[in-house]
Amino acid sequence: MNVNENYLKLPGSYLFSTIAKKVAEYTAANPDKDVIKLGIGDVTQPICPAVIKALHKAVDEMGTPEGFHGYAPDLGYSFLREKMSECDYKARGCNIEPDEVFISDGAKSDSGNIQELFSEDAVIAVTDPVYPVYVDSNVMGGRTGVYDEKTGVWSNVVYMPCTAENNFIPSFPDKVPDVIYLCLPNNPTGTTLKKDELQKWVDYANEHDSVIIFDSAYEAYISEDDVPHTIYECEGARTCAIEIRSFSKNAGFTGLRLGATIVPKDLKRNGASLHDMWARRHGTKFNGAPYIVQRAGEAVYSKEGQKETKAQVAYYMKNASYILNGLKDAGYEVYGGINAPYIWLKTKDNMTSWEFFDYLLTTANVVGTPGSGFGPSGEHYFRLTAFGTYENTVRAIDRIKKL
Amino acid sequence: MNVNENYLKLPGSYLFSTIAKKVAEYTAANPDKDVIKLGIGDVTQPICPAVIKALHKAVDEMGTPEGFHGYAPDLGYSFLREKMSECDYKARGCNIEPDEVFISDGAKSDSGNIQELFSEDAVIAVTDPVYPVYVDSNVMGGRTGVYDEKTGVWSNVVYMPCTAENNFIPSFPDKVPDVIYLCLPNNPTGTTLKKDELQKWVDYANEHDSVIIFDSAYEAYISEDDVPHTIYECEGARTCAIEIRSFSKNAGFTGLRLGATIVPKDLKRNGASLHDMWARRHGTKFNGAPYIVQRAGEAVYSKEGQKETKAQVAYYMKNASYILNGLKDAGYEVYGGINAPYIWLKTKDNMTSWEFFDYLLTTANVVGTPGSGFGPSGEHYFRLTAFGTYENTVRAIDRIKKL
Repeated sequence: MNVNENYLKLPGSYLFSTIAKKVAEYTAANPDKDVIKLGIGDVTQPICPAVIKALHKAVDEMGTPEGFHGYAPDLGYSFLREKMSECDYKARGCNIEPDEVFISDGAKSDSGNIQELFSEDAVIAVTDPVYPVYVDSNVMGGRTGVYDEKTGVWSNVVYMPCTAENNFIPSFPDKVPDVIYLCLPNNPTGTTLKKDELQKWVDYANEHDSVIIFDSAYEAYISEDDVPHTIYECEGARTCAIEIRSFSKNAGFTGLRLGATIVPKDLKRNGASLHDMWARRHGTKFNGAPYIVQRAGEAVYSKEGQKETKAQVAYYMKNASYILNGLKDAGYEVYGGINAPYIWLKTKDNMTSWEFFDYLLTTANVVGTPGSGFGPSGEHYFRLTAFGTYENTVRAIDRIKKL
Repeated sequence: MNVNENYLKLPGSYLFSTIAKKVAEYTAANPDKDVIKLGIGDVTQPICPAVIKALHKAVDEMGTPEGFHGYAPDLGYSFLREKMSECDYKARGCNIEPDEVFISDGAKSDSGNIQELFSEDAVIAVTDPVYPVYVDSNVMGGRTGVYDEKTGVWSNVVYMPCTAENNFIPSFPDKVPDVIYLCLPNNPTGTTLKKDELQKWVDYANEHDSVIIFDSAYEAYISEDDVPHTIYECEGARTCAIEIRSFSKNAGFTGLRLGATIVPKDLKRNGASLHDMWARRHGTKFNGAPYIVQRAGEAVYSKEGQKETKAQVAYYMKNASYILNGLKDAGYEVYGGINAPYIWLKTKDNMTSWEFFDYLLTTANVVGTPGSGFGPSGEHYFRLTAFGTYENTVRAIDRIKKL
């Protein structure tokens, strides 16, 4: 009897578990210290009134014979798929139909599960640093080869370094990948690509028969004009790109769980429709997001919902500005924070990421995320998030400035 | 660039899609007919008041800074895991700890995803007929070999026929499987095993190093004394069994999405802890069930929740009795319906399952599910469900009696 040995290849401990453990140890030893967490990417603002109202209404429905909803349609309720097609795509001139939108329980599930559509020998490429789920889910799927503990590199993964040296713009890799993960605006660096730069990747994918998995979780934080909100703004994306959307960061749904994945019907490989394959996965291994949560998602698109969620994004972006400017004043080399809720900084005095983590924790009592936890090219970098309360953010940055 | 070719092996159309299409065609051609659906296993009664109340309370919390909940703990909230450990296990004398309970978005996701823990060459065994998800998810995982369109048999799957001839008690297979799927009380046959019979399977698994995936979705419908409510009632199950639980059928959560999977810490294979592997999957490819839904699950275990959900189960079981007795009166050979909400019948005049489907649809305007859709040994059988309203159930059965 054999277990899936690919699972056993995963390095022992997950980045955020290690951080939690270190913080717990520090606070246990120093109970008087007021530790401020700007580490994990979870939001702190409550769900907005328009969404709360929609949730109550849907809950009431579920308690009546007429309003009760059982199993949802496989792809999700059309009231939500139509809204997304209309507001997220057609309003931007992108032709994405409601039946190309698959509602899910969140972008993490989808970005972890999407690799199933590809064969075990498919070559995946990731930017480096990167959201760990893309790599780890492919480790579990047997695509990543051998792990080098010392360098943190998987032998079969194509890494595309994104550092200050290349302005966080990845170069086309030497080896053509089958699957390319792009998260823009980026987690963890907070940087992004302009539309003409993203277009080059779409052209590359179409030319080389690659598929781009485009994670747009931070789209709501874009403030500059020439930054694409969806990959379908680029010509030809319908034949090479899958887009993963989240309600977590634009509307605070981290605890409500709602996302969507767009698989255009024009996306085919080996004569197979990836749309039909994903539909089959939904029908076989998933049973829909809760009705009440899909109604909550619909409310995000209402007039009040738009106003209230945009105010939340503005609140977090005020935090981002404070972090960005404060760290600049303190002499740090800082990136991101303009089209994303993440600030990416070079550590002080060439400390390693984990040295800097300890330094910030013990001197300023501020928790961030070591850049090396996101990949080899994240070494000597550090991530702070704008998702705290404004008060805590100000206190944390003022402490860092005073060091 | 290769897609996962295992996906392409799946036969074209899913059982319930075919049924929906046939019914749609019939009603379009016969708009005056009043068609009653006793086919798909979805519930019809609204969510009970105790759960609705808990949902409203949790929704209110999510709208306040103090009550807001973001990302849930990986395994689920301890308030729910503790309740399940206590009420579902310890109260029955089974030692299952809260940290062996993994909260999920439903039994379908878990029963589809659990196969990932096993290697690609693991041999799976299923009872025949069977819930299609067990087989289809293993097809996608590459474990099932070649499909024979004519017989509906996969070359690498071990089938354990359950028919009237063996009283629906599966025999140990000739070839020892690595993974054995058991759903008890059973979907689709509505039959179950007594405790001493299930104990034999636990002993078999421990002896042969197999793992049992035990689906207990219909546990709440057990009415007889010597039928186990959980596999952990059997001695030794902690070293060989994973149990999948659902809130869909005991509390009507089909549209709320909540389930749990129990992986005991004593369950190891090749020196690997399946508990740790499943924890890793949860941490990597899933981000928790919604906070509000986990609170809803907790309310099921309250005094009011227990009373109200038990009343719903009784309501459906009244339907089951009516179907069971009505069909017997009409001269059918009928099984199930005593410890399960499913009634399994032999078709009339040795019709095939699909012939009988058409016969019932066109003569009585009643929709059921062809047994052959659940596997080769389901041929000449037919499934009716007790999940309709009482009024519709009575009308449907009375029509069949009059044929």
